[in-house]
Amino acid sequence: MAEYAKVFGRLVNAFSKMPNIGSKTAEKMAYYVLDLPQAQCDELVQLIEAVRSEMHFCSICGSMTDEDPCRICTSMIRRKDVLCVVKDARDVTALERIKCHDGLYHVLGGLISPIDGVRPSDIRIKELVERVEAGSFKEVILALSPNAEGETTTLYIAKLLKPLGVTVTRIAHGIPAGGELEYADDVTLSGALNNRREL
Amino acid sequence: MAEYAKVFGRLVNAFSKMPNIGSKTAEKMAYYVLDLPQAQCDELVQLIEAVRSEMHFCSICGSMTDEDPCRICTSMIRRKDVLCVVKDARDVTALERIKCHDGLYHVLGGLISPIDGVRPSDIRIKELVERVEAGSFKEVILALSPNAEGETTTLYIAKLLKPLGVTVTRIAHGIPAGGELEYADDVTLSGALNNRREL
Repeated sequence: MAEYAKVFGRLVNAFSKMPNIGSKTAEKMAYYVLDLPQAQCDELVQLIEAVRSEMHFCSICGSMTDEDPCRICTSMIRRKDVLCVVKDARDVTALERIKCHDGLYHVLGGLISPIDGVRPSDIRIKELVERVEAGSFKEVILALSPNAEGETTTLYIAKLLKPLGVTVTRIAHGIPAGGELEYADDVTLSGALNNRREL
Repeated sequence: MAEYAKVFGRLVNAFSKMPNIGSKTAEKMAYYVLDLPQAQCDELVQLIEAVRSEMHFCSICGSMTDEDPCRICTSMIRRKDVLCVVKDARDVTALERIKCHDGLYHVLGGLISPIDGVRPSDIRIKELVERVEAGSFKEVILALSPNAEGETTTLYIAKLLKPLGVTVTRIAHGIPAGGELEYADDVTLSGALNNRREL
């Protein structure tokens, strides 16, 4: 670690805690902040504060939004019969980027995890069941990561929703695009084989 | 570009202007800011503002510091007879990291560049000559990047300092560690050959 002036070192340290940021990038960012014109620096600080004060959870889907309900929930052009269940707002952003889902979302705000003490009642499963009971959804897509918590949550929700007469699907898990078969782990490979499709 | 809530998108945009930060990392950083505990977010904002208000140029060497003169200029254990001339404060940090130079620094604050309209009088060359004239320096190391501006500035300063009876050296330019000879450009390769050393 380089020897920085005290306050500069603390800023480098704060930046290096951000995701994907190593110590060298954190240092570059701190110098960038130092060299920024005053107006731009003021804007950066204001944006950080504004994001925290203006962004909140959508009361319907639980996603992050600056309006309530959010733009997706109030959209006139989106399908109202398909609901995609995700872990958090980041996943909504990721799915919106690929523009393949034009239905609505339900953000759980976490995954069931006995190890971390996250119970079904700690995440927005009750709200999901209520939406499915009240709404006119034909299909609920469970788009959760294929790890222990994701699998548990997927199975738990599927069991709750199936009696409600809705089609419950999950996203495909398999070899990622560009991935090499030989480097895939055993679980991924056996899953990909078992979930093969007819061409 | 994903469709973000307005203020969130502006923060992502502000982060993506930082060095080494792409749109995906900027998005992760914005979510990080959103999820940060309030105290830590306040600290981040305060640090950004503190860095800008507390950091200033050292009146002796021109480096960035929160004390004046800076820790290096006032250090009791550093050599006072070797002066290392660099472009900016980032270079001081880079050189301090490798712990190979235990003398003093002189930060020019730029390089001579006729294209960008930077004249010798626009950077801290006069201050450098005054320090060398007044000080007890035996050696001045010119540690400037080997590009057009760096070369011009190196030659300009060398010409000014040599009559003052001080040894003027420059850092070696050649094939970087881990670099492949076959991929080196012609200027680097011919320079490395011309500057060969006896073993």
